[in-house]
This record gives sequence, C-alpha cells and structure tokens, in this order.
Amino acid sequence: MSYKFAEGEPIVEWLEALDEEAAARLAAGLRRETHPRDSVSADLAGNDYLGLSRHPAVLAAAAAALHTYGLGATGSRLVRGSTDVHRELEESLAGLLGCAASLVYSSGYLANLGAVRALARPGALIVSDAHNHASIVDACRLARGAGREGVETVVAPHADPAAVAAILAAHPGRPALVVTESIFSVDGDLAPLPELYEIARSHGALMLVDDAHALGVLGPRGAGGAAAAGLAGAPGLVVTATLSKSLGAAGGVIAGPEQLHRQLVDTGRTFIFDTALPPAVAAGALAALRLLAEGDDLRAGLHARAARAVDRLRGEGLEVSTPAGGVISVAAPGPDEALAWATACRDRGVAVGCFRPPSTPDGRSRLRLTVNVGIPADAFDEALDVILKERP
Amino acid sequence: MSYKFAEGEPIVEWLEALDEEAAARLAAGLRRETHPRDSVSADLAGNDYLGLSRHPAVLAAAAAALHTYGLGATGSRLVRGSTDVHRELEESLAGLLGCAASLVYSSGYLANLGAVRALARPGALIVSDAHNHASIVDACRLARGAGREGVETVVAPHADPAAVAAILAAHPGRPALVVTESIFSVDGDLAPLPELYEIARSHGALMLVDDAHALGVLGPRGAGGAAAAGLAGAPGLVVTATLSKSLGAAGGVIAGPEQLHRQLVDTGRTFIFDTALPPAVAAGALAALRLLAEGDDLRAGLHARAARAVDRLRGEGLEVSTPAGGVISVAAPGPDEALAWATACRDRGVAVGCFRPPSTPDGRSRLRLTVNVGIPADAFDEALDVILKERP
Ligand SMILES: Cc1ncc(COP(=O)(O)O)c(C=O)c1O
Ligand SMILES: Cc1ncc(COP(=O)(O)O)c(C=O)c1O
Repeated sequence: MSYKFAEGEPIVEWLEALDEEAAARLAAGLRRETHPRDSVSADLAGNDYLGLSRHPAVLAAAAAALHTYGLGATGSRLVRGSTDVHRELEESLAGLLGCAASLVYSSGYLANLGAVRALARPGALIVSDAHNHASIVDACRLARGAGREGVETVVAPHADPAAVAAILAAHPGRPALVVTESIFSVDGDLAPLPELYEIARSHGALMLVDDAHALGVLGPRGAGGAAAAGLAGAPGLVVTATLSKSLGAAGGVIAGPEQLHRQLVDTGRTFIFDTALPPAVAAGALAALRLLAEGDDLRAGLHARAARAVDRLRGEGLEVSTPAGGVISVAAPGPDEALAWATACRDRGVAVGCFRPPSTPDGRSRLRLTVNVGIPADAFDEALDVILKERP
Repeated sequence: MSYKFAEGEPIVEWLEALDEEAAARLAAGLRRETHPRDSVSADLAGNDYLGLSRHPAVLAAAAAALHTYGLGATGSRLVRGSTDVHRELEESLAGLLGCAASLVYSSGYLANLGAVRALARPGALIVSDAHNHASIVDACRLARGAGREGVETVVAPHADPAAVAAILAAHPGRPALVVTESIFSVDGDLAPLPELYEIARSHGALMLVDDAHALGVLGPRGAGGAAAAGLAGAPGLVVTATLSKSLGAAGGVIAGPEQLHRQLVDTGRTFIFDTALPPAVAAGALAALRLLAEGDDLRAGLHARAARAVDRLRGEGLEVSTPAGGVISVAAPGPDEALAWATACRDRGVAVGCFRPPSTPDGRSRLRLTVNVGIPADAFDEALDVILKERP
C-alpha cells in the first residue's frame, strides 16, 4: 500500500494508543489468545453437554438440509421466506419449553438483545442479576437506546430474591422486568427461580430467564431450568436459550406468549435485520432437540459424571462449586496460577476454561470445567487426572 | 398449565397492551409475516448475489467440515479453541480485503456491534449515515453504554460528504468515527467513499465501511467497495462485512490493522462471549471465498443482468434506482400498493423485498429486487415479467 503516515497524525496516535493498551493488558494478565483446538484430546471447556454436536442423526439432518436448501439462509426470514425446518424447530422448541410460541435467532446473543428490548416497556426498570452474561448486560444497555431514555437498569446482588424484592418495592407503579440466567454460565449454580418468579409476579413485573446452560440439562424432557422450577408457560415469564450448547448447534430462541412473538416479528430489530440461521444448522438443531427430549439417560449420565468429578476434586482438597448441571467451577489461588494451570492442562491435551478478573463477577479466578457425556468415561477420568496433577 | 390470571393484574395488562399495539400496527400497515419459501420459483429477494449458497464446492466443503468437527463450535473460540478453518478463513479475508488481520463473528450484526464499540474511543463523536443498517444504528447506541457516556452519535444526511465535514469541523479535537455502508442495503446506491475517507482523514477521524453488499460484487477480485475505491488497507480505515450475502454462508467479519485485532480478541464482548461460527459454515464460506475471488465472470454477469433489469423496468415507466451492485430499488406509489405488489408477485412464485415506512429512511415505499446470477437467465426474465404484470 502506498499510504503515507505522518508522525503525530491522529491515525498513527490511534495505533500507538492501541499498542499501549495492549501492553497494559499484558502487564495486568488480561491478554486472551485463540489456540488451535486440534491438539485437544479431551474437551472440558465447551458446552456440548450431551455430546450431540457429533451425533450421527444431527450430522445427517444437517447434511440433508445442506443439499435441500444450500448453505446460507440468504436473507432475513421476512424477506427471503422461511423454511419448513425453521417452522418445525420453533414449534418443537415452544412445545418443549411449554410456551405458546417461539422465535429462532442466529445466536443466543442476538436473542437476548431482542428479548430484553421487547420486554422493557416504556419507562421500565430492569433488575438484572450481577452474574448475568455479557449478552444480557449489553441487552440492558441497548434497551435504553434512543427514545427509550426512561428505561433504567439496576444490577441486583447475585441470586438474592430479597434484594430483588427491595429494588422492585422501591419503584412502585413502574413497569419492571427481572432478568436472570437459570444455571449461571461461569459458576454453574442455579438461580432461585421459584422465589424470583413469586416476587416478580407479586410486583407485577415480567421475568426473563436465560436457560442457555439448563436447556437439555434440567427439567422434564430436558426442558430447562424454568420448567424444572415448575414455571413452564407461567404468566409473564419469557425464556431465552441458545441452540449452541446442549443442542450442539448454533442459534438462539425466545419463547413466550403469542403476543410477544407477534411483537418480535413486527418490531424486533435483531430478528428483522439479521440473516436467518442457516437451514442446515436449524435442521441439525431440530434433530438434536428430538434426541435431547428423549435423553433422560444422557442427563442421568451427565449429573452422575458431574457429581463424581466434584467428589474427586474435593477429595483432593480443591474448592469446587456444587454444579446444578454441567458447569463446575474450581477455585484457583490467583489469576496467574489460574492461567498457568489452564495452560499446563492444554499442553497435555485437556481443554479447560479459565476465568480471571475482570471476567469474574467476584474478582476471584477459577477454572471452569464442563461435563460432556459424549466423551468416553475413561478419557474424562484421565482428564481429571491431568487437572489434579497440574494444580498449582 | 394451572396458572390463574386475575383481571387487571399487570401481566394481563401487558398482554392486552401487546394486543393493542399489534392492532395499531395492523391498522398502520406495519404488520410483518414470515412466509414459507417453498413455493418460490424465483428469488429476487435474497442476497445470494453470486449464487454461491448452492455451489457444489461450497456444499462439499461444508459437508466435509461437518464430519470433521461436528455441527456447532461448542463454545467461544477463546474457551473452546479455534479450528484451522476459522484461521484460514480469517487469513483469506484479510488478504482479499487488503488488511493486516481479520476476525470472524457469528453474524454481520454482531461484527458491527463489535466494530463500532471498539472504534469509538472515549469521548468519541460517531458520524453515522442516515441510511445505515439497523445493526450499525444499534452499534452506535451500544457504543455509548455504561462508562462510555462521552460517546455521542450524530446522524449525517445520506451520502453527503460536505455534511460529514461540517459535523467533524464543529467538534474539533474530539476523537471521531465516520460510519457508512458502501453499497446501501435498501436502495443499492454507493456511498462516496473516496470523498468521505479524505474528509475523515483530514479531520483525524477513523472510518468504518460496512461492505456487506459490496463484498464479492465490487472491486478487484470482488474485494468490495472500499477496495474498489482504492482504500484497501488505508490508514484508519476498518471494514466490516457479512459472510451471509455474496458468500452464501453466514457470519460476519471485521478487517483492519493488527492492533485492532488484538483489541477485539482481548476486549470485544460480541466476540469473547458468543459461540463461534460453526466450523462447517466457516468451511463453506472459505470455499465460497475462493470462488468469489476468482469470480470476475460471475461479477460481470451480475452487473450485466442488473443493467438489463433496470433498462426493462425503466422502459415500462417505473422509477428505478441506478444500482451499484445487485440491489435494485423500484418506487411504489404508496405502502399499501407496495405490499399488494409484493404479495401478488409472491403468489406467482416470485419473491421480492418490500420496504415501507418506517423501514425506509425517506418515508417512501418501494420494492427491493436483487440480482442472483445463480438463477437461470430465462427464469430471471420471467420473474421480471411477473413484476411488471403485477405493477400497481
Ligand atoms: C448464559 C448465556 N446466554 C447467552 C449466550 C449467548 O449464546 P450464543 O453463544 O448462542 O450467542 C451464552 C453463551 O455464549 C451464555 O452462556
Ligand atoms: C448493510 C448490512 N450490514 C449488516 C448486516 C447484518 O449481517 P448479518 O445478516 O450477517 O447479521 C446486513 C444484513 O443483514 C446488512 O444489510
């Protein structure tokens, strides 16, 4: 390229500033790297809890749809038309989640952006759990965009129904929305959903549950955390989930009453102005959904394996969370130790998650292990051996 | 379900309010419907400009990756590990776009959210074209989230470099970002990129070009609108694009200097906290990218077909935009006529886009036709016959 840079030109200063920021992050232990996954022999980092991403029926359904529909959806479903696969997937998801209707998005991230924006009525107060996922945090920010200045977000202490009740009580008469994950993504603990729903409803607030990590893992037929709490189809309750975790696919979903579905199709920007989920991915997710609903044995295996892993890790003196599903959080002494631990595991072929501040809400560093029942039992046990051997 | 609704309960009022809003949208002609695409014989609505979504090499690459990697990526690339396919796709995209590095996202929507947030420095002024896509509008809103109150967006009149210059001049000394599409998604016109870049640079502003509708359509080897304007790799210029249009796949990309890539991997929320693009989709996009780069004949066919379509439509007295690529905008007398026209076409097997206020920036209704060189010439001509026959 023939562009001339002049010293002191703002664009040069921009690159210098980025270099300085990168150096500061390096010094603070906040650099992130993508590593090739090819040398991984045991994956205790991904969210493919039921191992369905590689199930032959899932692959066959995706491959068949690839040939029927081509690769991309080639446009928004409103403009380009919707496939039978998208419709069946939405009907099946609504049925499983016990909601009147559901709408599929190209990611769980965009589903959360769409859900919070739709549910935050003019002037609304959003009460959001302190451990909520980045997509929910961004969703709360976006919900108070142009023309929505009255919308306000209050972050509630983690999993604390009394605090949520106090926040709602302090804003009487105002439309409100309580937002929480069911199984939290980093620590794997379960929100007190029945208490939160009771409080939300008694204050006339809507409630949004992000069931990303509980779909397929908890509840009757794997219907998720809201269903496990007896809240499937409860009035004023809306569920989001991703198709990218226990379904082993990609995409997101919002499930709720017909009226919400209507609102999202007519006005939801992250649905209207986004290319639809590729039909082949939707077809794979649909095949996975059938396996998931019939997968009580897979779920039993998942919970048994999680319990055994916790026993072993605690037996060796590690501080381990009590997992509600497939996510196990293991405390590390500090950020450097956590990173070194995760790196040593990866060097020995075991992929684990590593969370350090500021990505951890409580300032503590930990490994995040996930249970994937698609991994053979002995390979999983060997992976635990490695994790224990490499502990700081 | 056994939930009791009490009349006047806020949750009941919520559903009633949604019903009323839906009725108001119906009365205003603002309802949207997803239609099954199965009865469509000619697609003049999608964005598969080069017909690559069904190319045998694309399908074969996607199918092969499906069997190598499984369906979903099973996590963020930082946590779960990155595949060779993602890496090769990013290297190829950076190479084609003339940038040092690129980062792939699960959608163009999330890429735009990530790009604007990264480029809006503390206290920045964002100058955004009035016709910019919803994902850019949302990106500007999100860029002034918590801790970023100093960031401000000014909407500039469409394709008006003098207006952009005046806005920048009115805010001297402030970090600034000029954001525009290259080929605009609804009207298909081309932004005055060289003039805008000149102005941005002389004011020390960064510039973001969303090349969604120009990648594969304009520029040497289909490198897009920025490249066609001689701006590939220009200092301070960053390009976003989707993999969902001329590449016939799904996903999005940000291309720019190494330092930006570093910043996005370390801090970009829509990259870090989102499940990666499925490897099979990335593999299909990579195969499509090779065809796209070698596809001068496809591009020649696209432009020739677009020119012929415009001639025919204008010859029949219709008011038609001058397309820079594959998007043709045809004026309709009003919103009801536009909808009836599009519906009549669809009933005869021809899918067309239909844009009415408030989805059109200038309050005018139109059909949006796209050129897809994957459609046989006679089927395309017959589709134009239908559009002309059904004109209001
Ligand atoms: C709780 C939670 N919600 C939403 C998401 C976003 O889903 P997706 O990766 O499909 O965008 C994730 C993970 O990525 C998550 O952990
Ligand atoms: C100009 C423009 N930018 C961004 C997007 C979003 O891309 P994606 O559909 O891949 O999310 C689109 C279309 O959907 C678009 O037209």
